[in-house]
Amino acid sequence: MAAENCPVRFGIIGCSRLAKKVTRAILLSPATTLHAISSASPEEAKQFAVTNELPETVRICSSHEEVVDDPDVDAVFVPLPVGQHSRWGVAVAEKKKHLLMEKPGAVDLGELDKVLEACERNVVQFMDATMWLHHPRTAKMKELISDPKLVGNIGLIHTTSTAFIPRQFFETSVPAGKPAMETMGALGELGWYGIGAVLWAKDFHLPSSVTALPDITKSSTGVILSCSAQLHYEQDNTVGIIHCSFLSHLTMELEIVGVNGSLYLGDFILPYKEQSAEFNFTWMAKFVERDLGWNVKPEKVEVVNEVSQEVLMVEEFARLVQGIKAGSPPDVKWAEICRKTQLVLDSVMKSIEIGCTCVTL
Amino acid sequence: MAAENCPVRFGIIGCSRLAKKVTRAILLSPATTLHAISSASPEEAKQFAVTNELPETVRICSSHEEVVDDPDVDAVFVPLPVGQHSRWGVAVAEKKKHLLMEKPGAVDLGELDKVLEACERNVVQFMDATMWLHHPRTAKMKELISDPKLVGNIGLIHTTSTAFIPRQFFETSVPAGKPAMETMGALGELGWYGIGAVLWAKDFHLPSSVTALPDITKSSTGVILSCSAQLHYEQDNTVGIIHCSFLSHLTMELEIVGVNGSLYLGDFILPYKEQSAEFNFTWMAKFVERDLGWNVKPEKVEVVNEVSQEVLMVEEFARLVQGIKAGSPPDVKWAEICRKTQLVLDSVMKSIEIGCTCVTL
Repeated sequence: MAAENCPVRFGIIGCSRLAKKVTRAILLSPATTLHAISSASPEEAKQFAVTNELPETVRICSSHEEVVDDPDVDAVFVPLPVGQHSRWGVAVAEKKKHLLMEKPGAVDLGELDKVLEACERNVVQFMDATMWLHHPRTAKMKELISDPKLVGNIGLIHTTSTAFIPRQFFETSVPAGKPAMETMGALGELGWYGIGAVLWAKDFHLPSSVTALPDITKSSTGVILSCSAQLHYEQDNTVGIIHCSFLSHLTMELEIVGVNGSLYLGDFILPYKEQSAEFNFTWMAKFVERDLGWNVKPEKVEVVNEVSQEVLMVEEFARLVQGIKAGSPPDVKWAEICRKTQLVLDSVMKSIEIGCTCVTL
Repeated sequence: MAAENCPVRFGIIGCSRLAKKVTRAILLSPATTLHAISSASPEEAKQFAVTNELPETVRICSSHEEVVDDPDVDAVFVPLPVGQHSRWGVAVAEKKKHLLMEKPGAVDLGELDKVLEACERNVVQFMDATMWLHHPRTAKMKELISDPKLVGNIGLIHTTSTAFIPRQFFETSVPAGKPAMETMGALGELGWYGIGAVLWAKDFHLPSSVTALPDITKSSTGVILSCSAQLHYEQDNTVGIIHCSFLSHLTMELEIVGVNGSLYLGDFILPYKEQSAEFNFTWMAKFVERDLGWNVKPEKVEVVNEVSQEVLMVEEFARLVQGIKAGSPPDVKWAEICRKTQLVLDSVMKSIEIGCTCVTL
């Protein structure tokens, strides 16, 4: 079997609850195998192996360095806290290993660029683990948005990404309550998706300006618990509005309103179910005679997926890695998407710092 | 039959397309009759009578004064352009007639207060014609919001109210293109509903501040074609975000996200169908083990209504008028709701004027 047909051998550094799903995807996909893992402590790594029913062949390392140095590891998944992304992302790339990085990219664009530069220099693939971009529903929605007859010029993109975490957690916990590393809080953890969705809907064009809205809630330790922001595309008359929060229960709504049609879904980041997903599409809505009702109701568009979005992500990553083994260059699309998302996220942070005034991009 | 049991005799001044639905409601409700109408021109009034199949008993007047002066008219519905609300609202009240006023209230709070003061002084009922507040679905949603176990503290209220009107209309048409009267444009016509929905969700408490977002589109004649705004309830950590536009097709989404539950509906201003309406309710949503999906999906809550929301509005208005005839005072609740909505609308206008900075209330 040629090298490019062998499954991509993954290492995972920083095994945590967050890593469970991608770990399962790596085990499920025929394109990948899991070779080695490490965690903050060797005990935690062992426990992770048991809880996640890892095969006995998986090497349990006592340090992240061991995983990164392992010559039998082709690619590393890094679900470490965001404050450690840059250091370990660079370390992985310098060892000529491909990099699948948990979101958000890094603490800021400067730190992310160190990682992206290292990946470019070492000719390895970079991708951040934003899974919903790999779901076939996302592709189906893009198809509708791209047809000017169906959606047309977009006036509004609105997203929520909220998930309840008890407030005390941020007042006491480390590292989540350690502002130097995690001040982005809900903006980094959840707002990342909303920002990404606006960029995605706009074909990854950057907005002309970004403005944080004045409704920012922070913990006593300075972590953002809830905030909203506006991404303005002045030339297109498009406004993107994101809201993210640890203070509300789980929501992930995406709404796109255009001149001819609109989309809505309540589970854009992670579908309600693994095997199929839906969204509402409404086209050319107007009132019937005498305004007694509507001419149309939202149509449910269902997209069946045999494979879950995290498996699709891992497979896309593996496909690119195999391509590099076969002589193709890395696909820079994923680095660009991550970089733009980080740039907008940084702009929201900057707008917050300067009293929620407008940051021109 | 005692006077308080006779149907309330309505006059309508300024018959237009907008008036069709309330006209039909007045004819449908056993609590009301239509006595007289007037329009900008006598021909238009005659045509309105034919198109809307008015009974021959309806008096077609050649001026608004005739309707307002008619001793057989108990109450007047005023669907005139907003620039004429204040003048005619005061005229109706001074003739001791009850007043059902098309929204928005007036061109500004000062003008609206003239109307409300005249109504109070003349002991007549005031109500603006915001119909969705009278739908039983609205009451059902309020029931869920009011139970802290079901929704809990609200983090986000998001609304859209968009309806496509060709842009040229605002560049040429009068009075819609006449800035002095109609500069509020989409904010007055559509944003009124979004602002009202935020206030409604917050039990008509005023926000601590209002900020227009920088995405304002105006016609060459200065009419607002599209805008967004934030209503902030600082003490409660609640943010209300409204978006209104003449540049997108018909949408009217309302989304309320709380600590324990959330609501969503796509037709809050006018239900898709006349006889029943729905909303989605999601409660205590979180991920299942390994984050592979959700523990719950949105539940569809259906509310059947035998009578449409505009008939319910007219009947509520008639009930209050009958109460006044029987000796009760006017119900000031509707004046207060209208006044607060106007106050917030004015604050959005003010924020736009001062470069989208924050207006403290």
